[in-house]
Amino acid sequence: MSDLAGFKKQAREELFELLRIPSISTDPARKQDVERAAAFVEQGLKRAGMTRTELIRVGAGHPLVYGEWLGAEGRPTLLLYGHYDVQPVEPLDEWISPPFEPTERDGNVYARGACDDKGQTWILVKAVEWLMRRDGRLPVNVKFLIEGEEECGGESIAAYVEQHPEALAADAAVICDSEMFAPELPSICTGLRGIAFGELIVEGPKTDLHSGVYGGAAPNPLMAVAEILTALKGRDGKISIPHFYDRVAEPSPEEMEAWESLPFDEEEYRKKEVGSPELTGEAGFSVLERVWARPTLEVHGIRGGFTGEGAKTVIPARAVAKISLRLVADQRPEEAVEQLKAAIEGVTPRGVRASFNLLHAGAPSLVDPDNAYLKTAASAMEEVFGNRTVYIRSGGSIPIVGLFNRYLEIPSVLMGFGLPDDNLHAPNEKFCLANFDRGIDAVVRYLEWLG
Amino acid sequence: MSDLAGFKKQAREELFELLRIPSISTDPARKQDVERAAAFVEQGLKRAGMTRTELIRVGAGHPLVYGEWLGAEGRPTLLLYGHYDVQPVEPLDEWISPPFEPTERDGNVYARGACDDKGQTWILVKAVEWLMRRDGRLPVNVKFLIEGEEECGGESIAAYVEQHPEALAADAAVICDSEMFAPELPSICTGLRGIAFGELIVEGPKTDLHSGVYGGAAPNPLMAVAEILTALKGRDGKISIPHFYDRVAEPSPEEMEAWESLPFDEEEYRKKEVGSPELTGEAGFSVLERVWARPTLEVHGIRGGFTGEGAKTVIPARAVAKISLRLVADQRPEEAVEQLKAAIEGVTPRGVRASFNLLHAGAPSLVDPDNAYLKTAASAMEEVFGNRTVYIRSGGSIPIVGLFNRYLEIPSVLMGFGLPDDNLHAPNEKFCLANFDRGIDAVVRYLEWLG
Repeated sequence: MSDLAGFKKQAREELFELLRIPSISTDPARKQDVERAAAFVEQGLKRAGMTRTELIRVGAGHPLVYGEWLGAEGRPTLLLYGHYDVQPVEPLDEWISPPFEPTERDGNVYARGACDDKGQTWILVKAVEWLMRRDGRLPVNVKFLIEGEEECGGESIAAYVEQHPEALAADAAVICDSEMFAPELPSICTGLRGIAFGELIVEGPKTDLHSGVYGGAAPNPLMAVAEILTALKGRDGKISIPHFYDRVAEPSPEEMEAWESLPFDEEEYRKKEVGSPELTGEAGFSVLERVWARPTLEVHGIRGGFTGEGAKTVIPARAVAKISLRLVADQRPEEAVEQLKAAIEGVTPRGVRASFNLLHAGAPSLVDPDNAYLKTAASAMEEVFGNRTVYIRSGGSIPIVGLFNRYLEIPSVLMGFGLPDDNLHAPNEKFCLANFDRGIDAVVRYLEWLG
Repeated sequence: MSDLAGFKKQAREELFELLRIPSISTDPARKQDVERAAAFVEQGLKRAGMTRTELIRVGAGHPLVYGEWLGAEGRPTLLLYGHYDVQPVEPLDEWISPPFEPTERDGNVYARGACDDKGQTWILVKAVEWLMRRDGRLPVNVKFLIEGEEECGGESIAAYVEQHPEALAADAAVICDSEMFAPELPSICTGLRGIAFGELIVEGPKTDLHSGVYGGAAPNPLMAVAEILTALKGRDGKISIPHFYDRVAEPSPEEMEAWESLPFDEEEYRKKEVGSPELTGEAGFSVLERVWARPTLEVHGIRGGFTGEGAKTVIPARAVAKISLRLVADQRPEEAVEQLKAAIEGVTPRGVRASFNLLHAGAPSLVDPDNAYLKTAASAMEEVFGNRTVYIRSGGSIPIVGLFNRYLEIPSVLMGFGLPDDNLHAPNEKFCLANFDRGIDAVVRYLEWLG
């Protein structure tokens, strides 16, 4: 194994190099960096022995990196998915080390994208490369599809999967973009929430107004945003959008039972992960139900007026709230958005106009835990980690799972190696380097067993 | 008058020079510009023949510009007030011409501070200079006090007035920082609203969180801001802060009658000034009552989370809302702030901590319309404009009026030459150049008559 140890060391260095590229896909100013990350990943796939690689461009979007090795005749074909783009890094001043200077502390690497998803993507690439180096061939066929728009809506991959299902034909997809339920507890994610993300746009006065001169007569779009949001969601966490819960499917009794036996301490979760005085959310549901099996409405930012230093007594002409719905099976994004729009219309206060502009959406998904590809993955992880693999869900959204299911008609195996405190989408994102190594081991074992 | 005409032309050029200085007092980065504006004003006072000028510094604040001419023995002494600082200029992209490049269009000069208050301050300076040039002396004694913190709380002038009332001893103050009720309608403002401006700070999770992973269990400070604001003020415009209205004094029946006879068309006001689909505010009160004689609660900006391009699915650790109360006689700012703080505590949702951080406050004020200094000013304006002067109030706040009243025990005469559509605190602020000229005429006449 000393050879593999050296290989993993070099794999880390490559990962750090990838982490130095600020490939923030939502930021038009970072377009060149996103391209650099794509080129880096394609080089990685070439080194891993793919017989064909390609940067697939759909419209003006960020490229999909494709790579294939199809020399294992009669063996299954896996579609290996990851993404090389990352979230924005604000607020920058809360980072202990700069987001694009990967820094090791306490066995972790800190950087934007360390876990989500460069670190986990690199596990797939390096596991395949290791097998290829060792054996000169792979036990299964593989098709890599690594996207650059996961954090900004994933339009390119959605269009490509929809239009070219034959090019991506496979028996199962393997996705490394989720997390373990707890350290040392191998986990496979069987359910994801969907999402509909957009902007609530509220327009009132024709121009910004002096709040002294006009306050008391002019409508305030920021206040209207507050009124609309509180009308859409009560303090009890219940969403007041008519018919919003109609299609919400309850988890099976077996699933509920399994969740109850997970090592979950609500008070520790509150203190160590959330860090707020209290947890909140819908009454009558456990925390895991609330984040895994219940839909939400959240506000992510409100633009308008003056938020700089000091005072400016302005009534803004316009306010824009970034909001999202998280959806669970069997809710449908298009329908939920229509419900949201109708609800907004119903609760808009007088004096302003309000509208909702959808930016991106993805369907929720559920995978059958009895699927053989899933079970083999669970066994491979179990062997590497030395603990029984648990089936969990995630509150996050990986829209590609729904697309693979719909257009390729294949199940997705979500082997996650992130940890709950990896600070995804937040300052000081990190990835446990031991999990990077074990992730490679687990994927190697998985491919061997499938072959 | 050709001599005066030439003088006014030069006065405009000087004003334009002053308008080019971006003296935004709330912005620490503009400190040098604020200093440049103060120096410019002091030079102007010297040119106007003041026998003594001084930049008065209180702590680390922006300087007060003082200038005096006290050669009219036995005549009244006037304290002439204005301010040389200006509001921030965001949103910059809505300005037709750059805010610090004064540009003439349709008889107006467009620039930040054109009306509020560099243009009106310069009326006072140039009226005095004209009399001094023409007669070699003034008909009354004058003390100029021009501040640089009117838009950021006015701490320096408040401290100075409180600590050195003897140095500012006068018979009346003249303040040019308000507006006419309508074009061609000379107006004197007899009442101003007070203000308490500060930040509602809401803290929830210890760090920004992924809204997929934690949405449904973690409190969202932005949502909490919305919940607090809507709990403090209803959709009917009523403020729900306990005891908030207890001290609100109703206008006298005479004042109400006078307001009803003002040339005010609510529909035109809505369309031309506010530009919103409807006017809003407290039911049961006319528009003029609502903006002049009723207190308000407004939100001016909400910081927290992500408001940049595209999508970021974050639950922010913290949100800060800039909010203000406008107060009317006989409300007291300190008391109103205590009421607000108690109310916030009472309506803060679970899962977050909320506090209010006061940035600045000023008392409301009312001046007796029978005062001789007021009546003489009304007559002077009447002569220059050719129309009867009306007594109005303003919904805005000029805290110095309350301070002059309290510490110097003098009435303030608010001769305003701004127009209702001058876009104070908003993009495309302007000042009518004909009013600049007539303002000089009116102040000249006023000083002559008082002498």
